[in-house]
Amino acid sequence: MSPASRYTYLGPEGTFTEAAIRTLPEAATRELVPMVSVPAALDAVRNGEAAAALVPIENSVEGGVTATLDELSGGRPLMIYREVLLPIAFALLVRPGTTLDDVKTVTGHPVAQPQVRRWMGENLPEAAWESAASNADGARLVQEGRYDAAFAGEFAAATYGLEPLVTDIHDAENAETRFVLVGRPARPAAPTGADKTSVVFWLREDHPGALLELLQEYSARGVNMMRIESRPTGEGIGRYCFSVDCEGHVSDRRVGEVLMGLKRACDRVRYLGSYPRADEVRPELRHGTTDEEFVEAADWLTRCLDGRV
Amino acid sequence: MSPASRYTYLGPEGTFTEAAIRTLPEAATRELVPMVSVPAALDAVRNGEAAAALVPIENSVEGGVTATLDELSGGRPLMIYREVLLPIAFALLVRPGTTLDDVKTVTGHPVAQPQVRRWMGENLPEAAWESAASNADGARLVQEGRYDAAFAGEFAAATYGLEPLVTDIHDAENAETRFVLVGRPARPAAPTGADKTSVVFWLREDHPGALLELLQEYSARGVNMMRIESRPTGEGIGRYCFSVDCEGHVSDRRVGEVLMGLKRACDRVRYLGSYPRADEVRPELRHGTTDEEFVEAADWLTRCLDGRV
Amino acid sequence: MSPASRYTYLGPEGTFTEAAIRTLPEAATRELVPMVSVPAALDAVRNGEAAAALVPIENSVEGGVTATLDELSGGRPLMIYREVLLPIAFALLVRPGTTLDDVKTVTGHPVAQPQVRRWMGENLPEAAWESAASNADGARLVQEGRYDAAFAGEFAAATYGLEPLVTDIHDAENAETRFVLVGRPARPAAPTGADKTSVVFWLREDHPGALLELLQEYSARGVNMMRIESRPTGEGIGRYCFSVDCEGHVSDRRVGEVLMGLKRACDRVRYLGSYPRADEVRPELRHGTTDEEFVEAADWLTRCLDGRV
Amino acid sequence: MSPASRYTYLGPEGTFTEAAIRTLPEAATRELVPMVSVPAALDAVRNGEAAAALVPIENSVEGGVTATLDELSGGRPLMIYREVLLPIAFALLVRPGTTLDDVKTVTGHPVAQPQVRRWMGENLPEAAWESAASNADGARLVQEGRYDAAFAGEFAAATYGLEPLVTDIHDAENAETRFVLVGRPARPAAPTGADKTSVVFWLREDHPGALLELLQEYSARGVNMMRIESRPTGEGIGRYCFSVDCEGHVSDRRVGEVLMGLKRACDRVRYLGSYPRADEVRPELRHGTTDEEFVEAADWLTRCLDGRV
Repeated sequence: MSPASRYTYLGPEGTFTEAAIRTLPEAATRELVPMVSVPAALDAVRNGEAAAALVPIENSVEGGVTATLDELSGGRPLMIYREVLLPIAFALLVRPGTTLDDVKTVTGHPVAQPQVRRWMGENLPEAAWESAASNADGARLVQEGRYDAAFAGEFAAATYGLEPLVTDIHDAENAETRFVLVGRPARPAAPTGADKTSVVFWLREDHPGALLELLQEYSARGVNMMRIESRPTGEGIGRYCFSVDCEGHVSDRRVGEVLMGLKRACDRVRYLGSYPRADEVRPELRHGTTDEEFVEAADWLTRCLDGRV
Repeated sequence: MSPASRYTYLGPEGTFTEAAIRTLPEAATRELVPMVSVPAALDAVRNGEAAAALVPIENSVEGGVTATLDELSGGRPLMIYREVLLPIAFALLVRPGTTLDDVKTVTGHPVAQPQVRRWMGENLPEAAWESAASNADGARLVQEGRYDAAFAGEFAAATYGLEPLVTDIHDAENAETRFVLVGRPARPAAPTGADKTSVVFWLREDHPGALLELLQEYSARGVNMMRIESRPTGEGIGRYCFSVDCEGHVSDRRVGEVLMGLKRACDRVRYLGSYPRADEVRPELRHGTTDEEFVEAADWLTRCLDGRV
Repeated sequence: MSPASRYTYLGPEGTFTEAAIRTLPEAATRELVPMVSVPAALDAVRNGEAAAALVPIENSVEGGVTATLDELSGGRPLMIYREVLLPIAFALLVRPGTTLDDVKTVTGHPVAQPQVRRWMGENLPEAAWESAASNADGARLVQEGRYDAAFAGEFAAATYGLEPLVTDIHDAENAETRFVLVGRPARPAAPTGADKTSVVFWLREDHPGALLELLQEYSARGVNMMRIESRPTGEGIGRYCFSVDCEGHVSDRRVGEVLMGLKRACDRVRYLGSYPRADEVRPELRHGTTDEEFVEAADWLTRCLDGRV
Repeated sequence: MSPASRYTYLGPEGTFTEAAIRTLPEAATRELVPMVSVPAALDAVRNGEAAAALVPIENSVEGGVTATLDELSGGRPLMIYREVLLPIAFALLVRPGTTLDDVKTVTGHPVAQPQVRRWMGENLPEAAWESAASNADGARLVQEGRYDAAFAGEFAAATYGLEPLVTDIHDAENAETRFVLVGRPARPAAPTGADKTSVVFWLREDHPGALLELLQEYSARGVNMMRIESRPTGEGIGRYCFSVDCEGHVSDRRVGEVLMGLKRACDRVRYLGSYPRADEVRPELRHGTTDEEFVEAADWLTRCLDGRV
């Protein structure tokens, strides 16, 4: 296939990211290419070798995926066009015939460990854990006989000739991972009424209360923040940029005004895109923040400028 | 003369308002008509009988002139095109030949009294004060022999055949009155770089923190408030509108955004005009609030909408 | 009677202020002394010649009573101990036998005029208005035959041998005047749960956004402002102090914190008292602003200081 | 030695954390025990097996150390008593006799890679990178001949019989890591005038603008935030707690008020300690925020409560 029909994703095969990308309607008609790292998946897009990349950006247990956040805020610009929410539940994969009593050693990605720790304490209190490079890699190591069991997505069982001994394991309720589909800059996805807009901004150096002022750019227009993450700029302890998601689409007047406000107030802003919310929740708009009210206010200002008051 | 060359003012002749209107460059070529009250002066403009009216709006000792504030916020819309600042200093006017020892009774407008009280205590401790309908009227009553002396503007002496026994009397340092030249709605005065913009706004009924939010519309764009005055709406105790002057001209982008923000957030806003500041002080603009920065941010937003980031 | 049982009020007899003072439970056992002006009524208290003074502070049509506001913010400190709300409705007082058709000239206090203007336009379109020094004085002038009718409180009729031809005249719905009972500084009135606290504060000179910050002292503790009035400081145009009423009693923790915040942030603050609200409305407290929550937070801080976390 | 003289740290030996713990004055008289993970290091303190633990909390290139942040906000309470800032510069460690031309394979901790990537691109463009479990582990693998060179702290060379071929390698200027010395809850470190206070707070669920309000608790008292980090609560995407460092000591009145404000406004607050700033910078206090001004305001409030105004 051509690069235009190729999507990369954070591999290897058999991980949750692959499960996530397969939820995209167009997945069936794309070449899905696993990559060894988030930067590799995104650089393939930057270099024109793929049309888009699916990478994890946030996990409800582990927090922001810093590699993704840092790649989006630095390097050649990219934009987010879609998000995917995937509930995270692990299966305990074993070689056929293995029982829970047989399991003395388990493996899995280090990120999986805190999400199954309590379950292990209750069900496999004696078993020893060793980390693998990925959940899929852990499954492979079980296949090879190096460990008795691996925590991975249930979907990975078939690939490695294993069977799910226990399914739906997750210490935290509502554990889920958010993935974003990233492409080269182009027109944002069309507004749906239930959208999200992402930016990264850098505070001016010389201004201690700057973060508060920037959050007021949002609150003053009744635009609700959904995620805020500080990341170091690399210029020393105490120097941060902020990655922020808010409700609404760049073409909503209130969101456009927030972005312009950030642009004026910040040292630098990078627009990361507007895209449909995976949960399809529509924002409740505060009085005075609809597009109609923005247009009315602009019309009124024009009349003031003309003296038609 | 025609109504187009007629200016009304708060009379009678011989008061500070007449002195103020005579400072206008065009005064020499206008018919200047004293009126008995602020409403009368403004209604003449509303009715097309005069081109403009000069009325006092604020006194540094007495505060806002409520008749003017209420006339501007209610009734048919009017706009402010100019402001005049007049230092307030009284002269003690007497019939020729009178000495300070002869002065047993003094008169003047009630507003004058607090501004000369200390001076009287020190210089005329025994004299009795009675109020007159205006400073000019007080002068007339001295001319008629009803009182020994009147506090009035020095300029009123000649009109009434009196002489200024003492001049430059004012208890408060820097006492001054601000007057505004008011006309029917039309294009605002051209921006000079040292301008002022006046509005009246009415809070939404159901919102206790509303005033704070509205003040943030100003502060968020770095627009400095210069005067704020609450006035009853006439709908009962606890119901107010606010008369506010700020730095800048309606055609300044930051001011335009403040006005649109007020328009969206308020129950009602009345634009009262943008006009040159009498003190000719130019505002210090905060980073991110110049017209250039507003234009740049709007251009950037357009690029975001197009995906050219 | 002794000064301790004497109350002064803004006279003359027969005005609304007298009607207001007579609503006080203790009025029957006090000597009620009308004074010629607000300063005179308050100076009698300052000088120990009276225990308290009742003066108007705010009218729902005319706004703040500047003489009262300025006397409370300047001069020797006084405190407010009570407030009285009086609905304002005028009667048209005439000599017995006069009919509406007979009324060609009417009088009343200048403040009454805007409150009956519409009624006059509809009912006495041809009658000529001339101002009197007070509503009571107007009634006296009718008694003397100088005018045909006077607008005054219905209660003034008997005093002057007049009769109320029409009653309950008021252009504005809900017109009322708020009066305050003022005494020398002492412990505030006991909290009732439905209280009001009044202060005057002066902004620091060098700080343009200062008003906004001070309002945040209120909003940050969920304390609702009920009235805000700017008054000139007498130091020149653009220099103001602010007279503010808020919900709650100085002994409420949230109000105490607001006052301390103002004290630290302002050039100067004058506490004017805490007293029962005339409307007896209790505030709705926002989460985190009750006395219990303040005490819990203080206890928790003590534990933090001790390392008992 | 007894647990009271034992400090744990994030091992293994030969890493930057060991270098950091050795900068503590008391290090010479403590038993320094490397642990396999941050939780292990901290649990030893919780369980009384060690007096304190030194763990990394923030890296100017990589950002917050999530294991440390999450351990401090969850589990049995701990407190921070000291911080250590360590400039991060890598040495390229090789077996004696190796030259730069000989280096075909390099290793190091994954966190090291982004901090030396540019240097490698310029100086070892052909070399292959493979990750090791820690920088120290990388050095061991070079000692064993598995790789030609390892990035690690220069101090690790001697331990593994290696020599530093190149030193002071760091792509980012001012790269540094911040470590904290953590113990069981007890009285905070004494104030030095240049202190820092750390907390974690959880927003109330039902309140979208809550973060803004909490930041205003800081700004309203002129307390500067130095770090803010959002972390998932584990209850699902979009649910966060915030880890915040600010200037000042809990015993500073302004900081105490901020903490009480957070306590009242938040669902939950955990105090993590007040301790000397490693950079010894003293805050610039805004007018109205010194302890003296807090005490004066409290005294004034007492006088108001007594009517001594």
